[in-house]
Amino acid sequence: MEPGDVRESVAETAEEIAAMEVRGAATIAREAVEALRDQATESTAGDAETLRMELQTAARRLRETRPTAVSLPNALRFVLERMEGDDLESLRASVVTTADEFLERLDRAQADLGRIGANRLQDGDTVMTHCHSTDVLACIETAREQGKELDAVVKETRPRKQGHLTAKQLRDLGVPVTLIVDSAATRYIEDVDHVFVGADSIRADGSVVNKIGTRGLAVLARDVGTPVTVAAQTLKLDPDTFAGHAVEIENRADEEVIDEETRSDLGEVEVANPAFDVTPPRHVDAVVTERGLFPPEGIVALMRELYGTTPTRPWEEGET
Amino acid sequence: MEPGDVRESVAETAEEIAAMEVRGAATIAREAVEALRDQATESTAGDAETLRMELQTAARRLRETRPTAVSLPNALRFVLERMEGDDLESLRASVVTTADEFLERLDRAQADLGRIGANRLQDGDTVMTHCHSTDVLACIETAREQGKELDAVVKETRPRKQGHLTAKQLRDLGVPVTLIVDSAATRYIEDVDHVFVGADSIRADGSVVNKIGTRGLAVLARDVGTPVTVAAQTLKLDPDTFAGHAVEIENRADEEVIDEETRSDLGEVEVANPAFDVTPPRHVDAVVTERGLFPPEGIVALMRELYGTTPTRPWEEGET
Amino acid sequence: MEPGDVRESVAETAEEIAAMEVRGAATIAREAVEALRDQATESTAGDAETLRMELQTAARRLRETRPTAVSLPNALRFVLERMEGDDLESLRASVVTTADEFLERLDRAQADLGRIGANRLQDGDTVMTHCHSTDVLACIETAREQGKELDAVVKETRPRKQGHLTAKQLRDLGVPVTLIVDSAATRYIEDVDHVFVGADSIRADGSVVNKIGTRGLAVLARDVGTPVTVAAQTLKLDPDTFAGHAVEIENRADEEVIDEETRSDLGEVEVANPAFDVTPPRHVDAVVTERGLFPPEGIVALMRELYGTTPTRPWEEGET
Amino acid sequence: MEPGDVRESVAETAEEIAAMEVRGAATIAREAVEALRDQATESTAGDAETLRMELQTAARRLRETRPTAVSLPNALRFVLERMEGDDLESLRASVVTTADEFLERLDRAQADLGRIGANRLQDGDTVMTHCHSTDVLACIETAREQGKELDAVVKETRPRKQGHLTAKQLRDLGVPVTLIVDSAATRYIEDVDHVFVGADSIRADGSVVNKIGTRGLAVLARDVGTPVTVAAQTLKLDPDTFAGHAVEIENRADEEVIDEETRSDLGEVEVANPAFDVTPPRHVDAVVTERGLFPPEGIVALMRELYGTTPTRPWEEGET
Amino acid sequence: MEPGDVRESVAETAEEIAAMEVRGAATIAREAVEALRDQATESTAGDAETLRMELQTAARRLRETRPTAVSLPNALRFVLERMEGDDLESLRASVVTTADEFLERLDRAQADLGRIGANRLQDGDTVMTHCHSTDVLACIETAREQGKELDAVVKETRPRKQGHLTAKQLRDLGVPVTLIVDSAATRYIEDVDHVFVGADSIRADGSVVNKIGTRGLAVLARDVGTPVTVAAQTLKLDPDTFAGHAVEIENRADEEVIDEETRSDLGEVEVANPAFDVTPPRHVDAVVTERGLFPPEGIVALMRELYGTTPTRPWEEGET
Amino acid sequence: MEPGDVRESVAETAEEIAAMEVRGAATIAREAVEALRDQATESTAGDAETLRMELQTAARRLRETRPTAVSLPNALRFVLERMEGDDLESLRASVVTTADEFLERLDRAQADLGRIGANRLQDGDTVMTHCHSTDVLACIETAREQGKELDAVVKETRPRKQGHLTAKQLRDLGVPVTLIVDSAATRYIEDVDHVFVGADSIRADGSVVNKIGTRGLAVLARDVGTPVTVAAQTLKLDPDTFAGHAVEIENRADEEVIDEETRSDLGEVEVANPAFDVTPPRHVDAVVTERGLFPPEGIVALMRELYGTTPTRPWEEGET
Repeated sequence: MEPGDVRESVAETAEEIAAMEVRGAATIAREAVEALRDQATESTAGDAETLRMELQTAARRLRETRPTAVSLPNALRFVLERMEGDDLESLRASVVTTADEFLERLDRAQADLGRIGANRLQDGDTVMTHCHSTDVLACIETAREQGKELDAVVKETRPRKQGHLTAKQLRDLGVPVTLIVDSAATRYIEDVDHVFVGADSIRADGSVVNKIGTRGLAVLARDVGTPVTVAAQTLKLDPDTFAGHAVEIENRADEEVIDEETRSDLGEVEVANPAFDVTPPRHVDAVVTERGLFPPEGIVALMRELYGTTPTRPWEEGET
Repeated sequence: MEPGDVRESVAETAEEIAAMEVRGAATIAREAVEALRDQATESTAGDAETLRMELQTAARRLRETRPTAVSLPNALRFVLERMEGDDLESLRASVVTTADEFLERLDRAQADLGRIGANRLQDGDTVMTHCHSTDVLACIETAREQGKELDAVVKETRPRKQGHLTAKQLRDLGVPVTLIVDSAATRYIEDVDHVFVGADSIRADGSVVNKIGTRGLAVLARDVGTPVTVAAQTLKLDPDTFAGHAVEIENRADEEVIDEETRSDLGEVEVANPAFDVTPPRHVDAVVTERGLFPPEGIVALMRELYGTTPTRPWEEGET
Repeated sequence: MEPGDVRESVAETAEEIAAMEVRGAATIAREAVEALRDQATESTAGDAETLRMELQTAARRLRETRPTAVSLPNALRFVLERMEGDDLESLRASVVTTADEFLERLDRAQADLGRIGANRLQDGDTVMTHCHSTDVLACIETAREQGKELDAVVKETRPRKQGHLTAKQLRDLGVPVTLIVDSAATRYIEDVDHVFVGADSIRADGSVVNKIGTRGLAVLARDVGTPVTVAAQTLKLDPDTFAGHAVEIENRADEEVIDEETRSDLGEVEVANPAFDVTPPRHVDAVVTERGLFPPEGIVALMRELYGTTPTRPWEEGET
Repeated sequence: MEPGDVRESVAETAEEIAAMEVRGAATIAREAVEALRDQATESTAGDAETLRMELQTAARRLRETRPTAVSLPNALRFVLERMEGDDLESLRASVVTTADEFLERLDRAQADLGRIGANRLQDGDTVMTHCHSTDVLACIETAREQGKELDAVVKETRPRKQGHLTAKQLRDLGVPVTLIVDSAATRYIEDVDHVFVGADSIRADGSVVNKIGTRGLAVLARDVGTPVTVAAQTLKLDPDTFAGHAVEIENRADEEVIDEETRSDLGEVEVANPAFDVTPPRHVDAVVTERGLFPPEGIVALMRELYGTTPTRPWEEGET
Repeated sequence: MEPGDVRESVAETAEEIAAMEVRGAATIAREAVEALRDQATESTAGDAETLRMELQTAARRLRETRPTAVSLPNALRFVLERMEGDDLESLRASVVTTADEFLERLDRAQADLGRIGANRLQDGDTVMTHCHSTDVLACIETAREQGKELDAVVKETRPRKQGHLTAKQLRDLGVPVTLIVDSAATRYIEDVDHVFVGADSIRADGSVVNKIGTRGLAVLARDVGTPVTVAAQTLKLDPDTFAGHAVEIENRADEEVIDEETRSDLGEVEVANPAFDVTPPRHVDAVVTERGLFPPEGIVALMRELYGTTPTRPWEEGET
Repeated sequence: MEPGDVRESVAETAEEIAAMEVRGAATIAREAVEALRDQATESTAGDAETLRMELQTAARRLRETRPTAVSLPNALRFVLERMEGDDLESLRASVVTTADEFLERLDRAQADLGRIGANRLQDGDTVMTHCHSTDVLACIETAREQGKELDAVVKETRPRKQGHLTAKQLRDLGVPVTLIVDSAATRYIEDVDHVFVGADSIRADGSVVNKIGTRGLAVLARDVGTPVTVAAQTLKLDPDTFAGHAVEIENRADEEVIDEETRSDLGEVEVANPAFDVTPPRHVDAVVTERGLFPPEGIVALMRELYGTTPTRPWEEGET
C-alpha cells in the first residue's frame, strides 16, 4: 500500500454510499466514520505523517460519493479535526477514540432529541407532519412512551409519498392518523396544535432545507399562528453555509411525478421535480436537536461550537 | 297533467343532473334553463297561475338534484324572478324571452371574461395555475390570440390530477408548460408573474371557494407579493352567502387518495379527502368576471345587482 | 303654537333621550321617529310648508340631545328625506307612512340580522365576545333555536364589565360560558372558532367603532387567523363618515376605572377612560347586518344605498 | 366642412394637449369638453346623424393626443354617453347642457373633495406628502380654513422635486414644513399622523397609480400603522381597468435623473426613470373623492356608477 | 442528624417559600441560596460525601416548594454545580464562596439591568407598561436619575391590578402617569415610544412568559411598529426549556375575577383565570438583562453560558 | 514627556481623524491602531505602568475625535484589552504584537467577507444596492472573479448620490448597471434576486444602522419576499449597544438637500437631513461578516466573542 492509499473497507463504504445502498443522514455518517476507524486500525503506514495522509485521502474519497449529503462532511470533519498525535500509535489511538466518541454520540442523539421534542408535546395534541423523518418520529414515540395521547395529520408528500410510511409508523405507535393529500393542509392547519418536520440541512442563517413543500406548510402555519418545530440532529447543521454557500436543489427524475402513459399523453410538457425547498427562519418557531432546543436564528451558535468558526475542509488538504 | 306537474323534459334534465351526466357549472345552468323554457312552451296549463305553479315545481325539482351547485339556483332564480305576465300567453312569452336572454348571456360570458382576464396578462408573463378551470383557460387563450407569449407552471392538483388536463390544453395553446407536484409551488412562486385560479363559488364576504390547495397557494403568493387572480363567471357568485350561509366542504372518496393496495397496507389509517378550501379575500388581488374585474371585497355589489339584495328561493314558494 | 313649534311629545322625547332615560341605538331611533309621527298627526299647522318647518325643528331638537348617537340622525333622515306632498294632508300622511315603514323595519331588523349571523355559526363552535351587544346575542340566540350547540368565552370588558350581562344572557340561552378578564383573550384566541362583536358605528372606510378593546381583540384574532364578525344593524352605519368626518372618542369618568380609595391612594396619577376604539377593516372578516353580510370594505355601498350618496342634514335646513 | 370634420377649436385644443401646453388632469378634461361643446354649437352639420359623427371624430382626435391621461376619456365619455336627441337642435342642446353639467361638476369637485379630506385631519396633526397634488393641497387648505393647525413633512420627490412646490404652497397656507429627501421618510413615518398622496389614476381593483415612490411610502406606512389617504377626484378613476387593462408605466428621460456631466462620467450605465408605480389597495386606508370617502376596495362601485358597468369607447364608434 | 438531613434554617426557608411569605423571583433565590450556605456552615456531616448528600436533599426540599418558580432552580443549580472539593472543609468553603458570589451578583443585577434599560430610553419618551416589574422600574428609575423626562401609560392589569402599584411608584419617580384599563392600550399604543414589560421566565426559543395580557400588548405594538422591550434578570431564564419543556400556565382563583355577589348572580358561568401567557420572540424587540441586551432569539446563548448546555437537576441526584 | 503624554504621531492621527482627512471605518481603525503601536514603540516611559497610562491617554485622545465612529473604539479596545505584561518591554512587545495582529486581520477582512458574500450570489442574479459600500462591492467583485454574470440596480442615494460611485465601480467590474432614483426601487424590487447593503454599525439587538433609506428598502423587500443581505466587517459591530445605548442619528447640512437658490425660494421651510436610519432585524435575512454569515438576531454572539460580554471603555480608565 502506497502512502495515501486507503483500505479496502473505505473503498467499499464509498461505493455503497455512492450507490445509495447506504442511505439516511445518520447511517451514512456512521459508515463513513467506521471506515475512517478501519483505515486507522488497519493501516500499514510507517509513520504518523503517512497515516494522516491516508486518512485525508480516505476522507476525500468518502466525501466525493455524495457531494450534497451534509452529514458526511460533518462526520469526517469531527474525526479529522479532533485526531492528534505526533507518533503513529498515538495518532492511530486518537482516531479510534475520536471515532468511537462520534459513534457513541450518534447512538444517543436520536433518543436525546426525541426526549426534547416530546417535551414540546402535550397530552391531547394533534401534530401535522410532512414527508418522513426519523427525528420527528423519535419525538412522537417518546411522547407516546410518556403516556401522551396524540393525533396526527399526515401529508402524503408527493411525489414519493413518504407520508405513507410515516402514517404506518405513527399508527404502530398508537397514534390515530388522518392521511391527506398535500394540498389539504389548508383544511386542517387551524385544527392542529403543532407542525413537526425534519430537515435535510439547516443553514447558518437559520433557514431550513427540507423536502419540497415544507416552506408552503410553514408559511400557512404562520398565517394562522400554528407553531412549527423542526426536529434535526446536529449532523444536519451545514457549516459550509457559514461561509455563505448557497444550497443547490436537486432536480429529480420525471418518473417520480408522472407515469409513462401520462408522459406520452402530455407530450411536450416539461416536468420539474425539485427535491427540496428552503424555509426562512421567520416561519419556524423552534429547532429541536439532541443538544437542546433553539430558535432557528440561534442555531448558528451551536453550529460554530460543533464545527468551528471557520469550517475546514480537511479532506482537501491531502490533495496533491 | 295536474297543476304543478312538470313536463317530461324537466324530469329528464333533473335525472341527468342528478346522475352527473350533465356536469360543469355552466352546462348545468344551461340545461336547467332550457328545461324551464320547455316547461313554459309545452305546458298545458289553462291559466297563468297554473303555469306559474308548474314552473315553481319544475324549479324545485331541478334544484333538488344538486343541492351544492351554485350555478343551478342562480340560473333558476334568473328566470323565475324576471318572468312576468298576468295572462297565460304573456307569462309564457316572458319565460321564453327571459330564458333566451339567460342563455345568450351564458354564451357570451366566457369569451367576455377571457378578454378581461387576458388584459391582465403581459407579453412574456409566466402564470401559475391550480386544478382545471375553463375560465382561466379562456383568459390565457385570449391572451394567446392577442399574440402574447406566455409560460405556465401547472400544479398537478392531487388527488385527481386535473393539472394534467390543464397542462395539455395550455400546451395546445402554444404555452410552454412546466408541470409540478403541488408542493413544488414553493420553488416557483417567486418566478411567476401571476397566479390564476378558478372558483367553485364566491361568497358575499369576498372569500373564494375552490379546489383544495387554492388557499395554500394564495397564502404563499401573498408572502412573496405575487398577485392572485380568480377567474369566475358570475354564475359562481353564491347569493345565499349574503344571508351568512356557511360553505359545506364535500369530503370525497378515499379511493381518490390511496389505491387498494395502500389501503390494505395502511390498515387503520383514516383518509380525509376534502374537495375544497376557502381563501379569504385578503389573499386575493382581483376577481375577473364576464362583467368586469373586481377586488374580492367589492364582489358583493355585483352579487346584489345580479341576484337581488334579499336572495329569494322562488322554487320554495310553490311548495305545499 | 307658532310655525316651527314642536308638540309636547317631541319635547318630552328629546328630554328623555338627553337624560339617557331612553337608551340603546334602536330604542332611541324608535322614540325619535314616533315623536316625528306625533308631530305630524298632532300638528295644528295650516299648510304643508309650516308642517315641514315644524318637522325640521322637531328633528333638530331631537338631534341635539345626543350629538354622537349615530342611530338618531339615521332615523330622522329616513323620515325627512322620504316624506313628500305639496299639500298639508298628503305631507302628513306621508310622514305617518314613512315613520311606520321605519318602525316596521326596525322591528324586523334584529331578527333578520340574527338569522344571518346564526348561519355563520356551526354546531359545536366556540365564540369569543367583548362587551354586550344585542345584535351579537340575536345571532347566538337564533343559532341556539336552530339547535346548534355553542360555547362562549366572554371577556368581562373593563371598566363597566358589560361582559357579566352577556355571560348571564348566554347562560340563559343554554350556552356554557367561560368568563375571563380582558387580557386573558390571549390564552383562548386559538381555541375559539369565531370572534363576534357589535358596533357603536361603522364608518364609510369600513372601520368599526366599538367598545374600547375591540381593536386589540381583532388584531390578536388576525394574528392567529381566527375570523372576526361584526354584528350591527344598518342603523349603526354612519353616513357622515362618508364625508370624511372623524370619530370623536368619548372620555368617560375616572370613577369607572378606580374607586375613591384608590383615587386618594394614587394621588396625582391621571386616569384616562376612552369609551371606544376604531378597528380598521383589514382586521375584520365580515359585517352582518339585517340586510345581509358584507366584507367591511363593501359596507359603503349599503351606506350609500340607505342614506344617500351625499348625506343631507335636513334638520339643519329649518334653522334660521 | 365635411361630415365628421371638426371645428378649429377642437383641432387647437388637441394640439395644445398634445404639446402639453394644456396640462393637469382637470385642465385637460375641461378643455376637451369645451372643445366638444364648441363643436356642437359651431357645427354646420345638417342633421343629427352628421353632428353625432362630427362629435365622435372630435372625441377621437382629442383622445389620441394623450393616450395615457385618464381624465380625457372620462370627460369625453361623460358627454358622448349622455347626449341625446333625434333631431339636430335637440342633440346640439343636449351636448351643451351635458358639457355645462360636466364643467360645473368639475368646478365644484376640488372644493368638495377638499372639505371631505379636511374632515379626516385633526387640529395638531402632522401630514406626510409625496410629489405635488392639488387634491391633497385642497384638503389641507380647507383644514387650515377650518382653523386647524397642521404640520407637514414633504418628500422632495426625485427626480423632478415637485416636493419643492408642495412645500412652498403649504408654507403659504401657514403650515410649518419639513422638507426631506425621499429616503428620509423612514425617520419620520412614526411621527406623522397621516400620509396624504394624490393619484394619477385609480384602478377597478382598488390599486392606485401615482408618482414613483408612492408604493414604497405606503408599504412603510402600513409597517408602522400610519394611515394612508389618497385624494383623487373621480376624474382619476380609470374605467378601462374594469376590463382588466394593465397600466403602462411611462419611462421618462434620463436627463431628469442625471446631468450631462454625470452622464459622461458614468458611461455605459443605464438610467431607468419610471414615472409611476402601483400601490395595492391593502396598503391604502381610504380614497377621498369629491363624491365621498371610500375604502380602496369599494371604489369600483363608484366607478361603475359614474362610468358604466361596461365602459364604452364612443370615440371609436365613429371610426371607419 | 442523619446523612441527608437538612438544617432547621433550610426547613424554615422552605416553609416560608411554600407559604408565599417569601415572594418575588430575586427574594426567593436569595433565601434559598442563604439556606444552602447555612446548611454548609452548620452541617454536622463527617465527610464531604455526606455534606454533598445533605446539600442535595436541601436543594430538593427547597425546589419542591414552588415547582414553577424559575429563579429557585437557577439559584440552587448555581451553587450545586459550582461547589467542589474532595474533603469536607474544602467543600464547605466552596459552598460558602459560591453562595456569596451568587448573592453578590444578585445584589448588583437589578442596578446593572437598570442602567442598560435606561440607555434605551430617550429624554421625552413615553413608556407603556403592563403589570408590575421591579426590573422595568429599575430601568425607568435609572433613566430618571440620568435626568431624562419620561411619561408613562400604565395598564391596570386585571384581575389583580398590579398596575396601581406601578403607577404609584412611577409617580414617586417623578413620572407623569396615565392609568388605563387594559383594553385601552389600543388608544395609546401609537402615542408611546416604548412598551416595557418584565418576565416571569424566558424560554430557550426566545418566547417570554409573563403576566396574562403581555402577548396581546406585544401583538398590538408590533401592528403599529412600537418597540417592545422585556426587562428580565438572568434569573428568569428557564434552562429547562432548553430541553423542550413546555410552560404550565397556572390557573388562579375565581375570586380574583368576580366577587361573591357576581358569583351568585352569574350562577353556572365558569371563570377562567390564567396567570400568564407566552409571547413569541417575533413580537419582542429586545430583552434587557443585567448581562446586556439581546434579541429574544439570541438569549439562548446566554442561557447556555450561565446554566450549561445540558441543564442538570442536581437536586434529583440525591434521591433514592 | 510626562507620564500619560502621547507621541506626536498619536496627536497627528487624532487631528487627521477629527478633520476627516482620515475617513472610512477601516481606514480610521488602521490609523488609530498604528498610532497606538507608535506610542508603544516610541514611548520614553520608564515602566510598564507609565506606558499603560500613556496608551490609555492616547486611546482617549483618539476616541474623542469621532464619538460616533464605531470602528474606532473597536480598534482601540482590541489592543488595550489584549495587551499584557508586567514589565515595560513585555508590555511594549505585547502592544506591537496585538496591533500587528489587528492590522493583519483588517487586511484580510474585506477579502474574506467578499468570498462569503459572493457565495450567496448565483450566476445570473440581479442585485439591488443602496449608497456605496466597499463591503458590498467586495462581495460582487469576488462573485465576478468566480465568473458569475450579475446585473445591478443601483439607487442614486440622495442627498449625496453615492450611488453614482457605486454604479461606476460596478460598471468597471463588468456588471451591467441600471441607475434609478431612490423612489424607483418600488418598480424593480420584484425583479431583483437580492438586496445587498452595507452598514454603518450593527447593534446588539440585530438592528442595522445604515445610510438613510435602507430601512425603507428593507421593508419593501420583505413585502415581496426579496432577501436582504447586509455586508459588514466585524469592525462595524457596536458593542456599546450591548449596554443598551441608543444610536444618535446625525443630522447633516441643509446644503446637501437644497441649493442656495431653492433655499431662498423656499423661505421658511425647514430642511431635515438625517444621515442614517435603523432597520430592525426582522427585515434583514443575513449579515455577512469576514467571520461568517449570521442571521441578524445571532450577531450578538459574535459581538460578545470579539468585544467581550461586558464592553469596557479602557480609554476612560486613565482619566483623572
